[in-house]
Amino acid sequence: MDAKAVKEREPFHWQTSIAYKNKDKIVVRGYDNNDLTGNVTFTEMAYLVWRGDLPPANHTRMLDALLVSMAEHAFSPSSAACRFVASGGVPLHVGVAGGMLAIGSLHGTADRPAQLFTDAAERMQRESLTMQEAAYKVAGEARAAGRRLPGYHHAQHIIDPRTARMLGLSDEYRISGTYVAMARAIEAATEEFWGRRIYLNGPGAMGAVCLDMGFDVELIKGVFLLSRTVSLIAHTYEEMHREKGWRASTNSPIVQPLDLSLQKPEFYDGPRDRPLPKERGGAR
Amino acid sequence: MDAKAVKEREPFHWQTSIAYKNKDKIVVRGYDNNDLTGNVTFTEMAYLVWRGDLPPANHTRMLDALLVSMAEHAFSPSSAACRFVASGGVPLHVGVAGGMLAIGSLHGTADRPAQLFTDAAERMQRESLTMQEAAYKVAGEARAAGRRLPGYHHAQHIIDPRTARMLGLSDEYRISGTYVAMARAIEAATEEFWGRRIYLNGPGAMGAVCLDMGFDVELIKGVFLLSRTVSLIAHTYEEMHREKGWRASTNSPIVQPLDLSLQKPEFYDGPRDRPLPKERGGAR
Amino acid sequence: MDAKAVKEREPFHWQTSIAYKNKDKIVVRGYDNNDLTGNVTFTEMAYLVWRGDLPPANHTRMLDALLVSMAEHAFSPSSAACRFVASGGVPLHVGVAGGMLAIGSLHGTADRPAQLFTDAAERMQRESLTMQEAAYKVAGEARAAGRRLPGYHHAQHIIDPRTARMLGLSDEYRISGTYVAMARAIEAATEEFWGRRIYLNGPGAMGAVCLDMGFDVELIKGVFLLSRTVSLIAHTYEEMHREKGWRASTNSPIVQPLDLSLQKPEFYDGPRDRPLPKERGGAR
Amino acid sequence: MDAKAVKEREPFHWQTSIAYKNKDKIVVRGYDNNDLTGNVTFTEMAYLVWRGDLPPANHTRMLDALLVSMAEHAFSPSSAACRFVASGGVPLHVGVAGGMLAIGSLHGTADRPAQLFTDAAERMQRESLTMQEAAYKVAGEARAAGRRLPGYHHAQHIIDPRTARMLGLSDEYRISGTYVAMARAIEAATEEFWGRRIYLNGPGAMGAVCLDMGFDVELIKGVFLLSRTVSLIAHTYEEMHREKGWRASTNSPIVQPLDLSLQKPEFYDGPRDRPLPKERGGAR
Repeated sequence: MDAKAVKEREPFHWQTSIAYKNKDKIVVRGYDNNDLTGNVTFTEMAYLVWRGDLPPANHTRMLDALLVSMAEHAFSPSSAACRFVASGGVPLHVGVAGGMLAIGSLHGTADRPAQLFTDAAERMQRESLTMQEAAYKVAGEARAAGRRLPGYHHAQHIIDPRTARMLGLSDEYRISGTYVAMARAIEAATEEFWGRRIYLNGPGAMGAVCLDMGFDVELIKGVFLLSRTVSLIAHTYEEMHREKGWRASTNSPIVQPLDLSLQKPEFYDGPRDRPLPKERGGAR
Repeated sequence: MDAKAVKEREPFHWQTSIAYKNKDKIVVRGYDNNDLTGNVTFTEMAYLVWRGDLPPANHTRMLDALLVSMAEHAFSPSSAACRFVASGGVPLHVGVAGGMLAIGSLHGTADRPAQLFTDAAERMQRESLTMQEAAYKVAGEARAAGRRLPGYHHAQHIIDPRTARMLGLSDEYRISGTYVAMARAIEAATEEFWGRRIYLNGPGAMGAVCLDMGFDVELIKGVFLLSRTVSLIAHTYEEMHREKGWRASTNSPIVQPLDLSLQKPEFYDGPRDRPLPKERGGAR
Repeated sequence: MDAKAVKEREPFHWQTSIAYKNKDKIVVRGYDNNDLTGNVTFTEMAYLVWRGDLPPANHTRMLDALLVSMAEHAFSPSSAACRFVASGGVPLHVGVAGGMLAIGSLHGTADRPAQLFTDAAERMQRESLTMQEAAYKVAGEARAAGRRLPGYHHAQHIIDPRTARMLGLSDEYRISGTYVAMARAIEAATEEFWGRRIYLNGPGAMGAVCLDMGFDVELIKGVFLLSRTVSLIAHTYEEMHREKGWRASTNSPIVQPLDLSLQKPEFYDGPRDRPLPKERGGAR
Repeated sequence: MDAKAVKEREPFHWQTSIAYKNKDKIVVRGYDNNDLTGNVTFTEMAYLVWRGDLPPANHTRMLDALLVSMAEHAFSPSSAACRFVASGGVPLHVGVAGGMLAIGSLHGTADRPAQLFTDAAERMQRESLTMQEAAYKVAGEARAAGRRLPGYHHAQHIIDPRTARMLGLSDEYRISGTYVAMARAIEAATEEFWGRRIYLNGPGAMGAVCLDMGFDVELIKGVFLLSRTVSLIAHTYEEMHREKGWRASTNSPIVQPLDLSLQKPEFYDGPRDRPLPKERGGAR
């Protein structure tokens, strides 16, 4: 590298539009952090930090509803993961982060249906389709290609109870627009191509409502992450205080998940028992 | 393991007091999740999930204030960590979890001062001390042993601007009790032993206020984690959208953190350059 | 869910082909773990655990060379990430895991070039092309579409010094086959389409060599992960023992990365300072 | 902060004794990385990166044996955790890191028994005790205080089969010294205080042997981490290729861990079902 070129560059520093601080104050998106404290709710603060401005009243109510609806769901990949991490003997934040790692492309996927609805709406424009026509194309092509529609179907609930509640509030708060309509249109179209209705699930509803609130697709995943962090804290905390490390104790009245009876030789289907070859040092 | 004993145990299942679900509904601490959605704020929901009951009004306002105050702090170990994780090319949730891992015993440590205040209050009782006497003992013994007081001093702010705001609201909302008083008494006592005032910092204030709201020590760390997750989402998202992967590009106007000029041979102080010994295959 | 159907299913247990254990022994891919201990090297053990059989001698030597070559690379996204995680005050394993999270789609990406070479080789077969023809199509199409070739170019080294060493040993150990040849052919083809040679980088070489050893594409990422874990342990350990928490101290002779001078208001480009609107409680 | 003081400090850069790189080469602990590649084994490389020098031959053999012995253990907190993380739909490295997070103070704890043996040996010196006397004090005081001895007892194996193999090789390779002797002496002493022998487990043996090889206590945890990473890669990979996301499918012949039948209302013991109070918006 050319030493001269380096000198001409600004020395390293971070660059951000989120916040700055100095010895005396912390400024977030232009507001003094102390002005915000006591005057805005945590939900409004999240909206401000993420999007740069405080939300209008109906966005606050809707975001609260979404964050509440997705905050707790008993056992899912993330709550199970945080418990196994916790069972190894770690501080609270490590269990919570371990659970969050599980919120991948198959769990809490509000961003993936949001991308589907965004693409469908763009296509409606580009190809001058009615919404129903666009929905039919999206559903029909997915079915023909054997692809699942992200944001539809829930393996445990089939009809996810959270969906109707979130969409109802979205209508009531006058949030629902193009994307909620598209989400509904695609659900309706599934009947034609699957022979039964494939229902919009909770993350799917969250994705559509967030788009109608103007959230960027990728940031919608963030909304889910914040919401579910509530649950991960509770599950990690409960695991730490209620269960013994390792979860393998034979003294527990419930067979523990790492009990040897759940990992018997019969449940192993790799190579059969075999001696190490002699030339490798076997047959001792 | 005794096969008979195993058979007498209940087959494996999870056991929890947080929530349950079935095909048709999700129940959180006894409430139908859909009843909560639209009727309680996210802050109230967090309180319910963590503590089992909905908060009284002053707890809601106080918890909102604490969560807002700690939500964003520009660059700290966690926001820096989430950016480096993101620079390796990962989904949003992985950057956020990576940042959260940094919120350890030296960062966002509201639980550690909470433990200090709890211990001090118990000692006050046990040894029949006045609060001032207990505070003097705690501060004096720490100073004598060369120990730092968790929750006091902030390397960047010296006088953390968040502290006065949080404690002021705690007084206003009639939350402040034994623990806030103890936090203040220990701060006052530092003048005696350090020769200057060591100020209560933000996490220290959060710890005292949460104790006076009845939070368990370890759960107080969870309050910080939820709050700061807002920031980690924003920083990870900004990194993904504003910066190039690796942060090593020589084309950037700012010297990037992984630029070779920041990791020159002169900054290495291990063994000098040496040949691999001949018997190891060196001198090729 | 149909209660009858559930009853007919086997109760929950794990199912695996990797290993089993009982009270008295641990069996890995058919071998008693104690037979392996002392008789095979760690590199041979990794190969066995991952692929089900012990490696032939030239695979052992080659895998050792690859694991050595990629084990340490000074500062990269992962070693920087592990240090910031460690600076928050966490146990060693948490720093190491935090660093590993950064080894995403832009870092240590031996799997992505491996996919490129696999696709190119399949296309050569399918379209009855010579290797050179296939390589020209792959390079030319990427260039035309403005896509980068995974496994080629290194922002810091330009000509990655590890590549020639790894490929030379692969030839010497008689590993090099179709995939190493394809990697070389694509490098040669870049001259035609970029007007200069775009060099195969270290992870690219690792990907090609691993394919010629019969590794599955996705598992090749695992080879990199194991290798670089050595580095993450060293960097996390050094950070914990050599640096102070937070890395913000103004007493250090080197400006610390979280020093306020690296995060000045001038480096913030979000909304300018503004008062909280009166109706939100501002103007206190 | 004093602007003048900042100017007098060196601008930010990393400082390390592990490695450096420039455009043309990578130097690790003084050796050119390309000299090491092909000439040292991965085990020797790990030793060099961690400790600064290449190992003597008996250390290489011993370290290989330890890394092999601990590489795979079927289902434990970490392999279970990596599988649940993977079930959420994440890249390989995220599952592996998620599993690693579980290797906390209760799992793979070679460092904790190493601390116990270090303390016992120091005490032997300081108090001029015989080894047996020191071991009796350590065991007796732990028993009296109701403390468990780290590195002793294994919930699944009782007599951990790995221990005798590792210690036997340590004797054979002439590694065994003070710490292995102390580990054995403490095991012998448990009979006196527990009324039965509490056996040294695998991580305990690893800790003692590593101390006799001159490893620093905290770095011994790193030895375990590297070893078990082999397993986490295999389990994450198997989960990704063999199982369906979420692990909740009712179509599987085995009841999946997140099946609703494993999280029935009967397994919930929090507050009973209750309506939301009217003043909160309940009774809809």
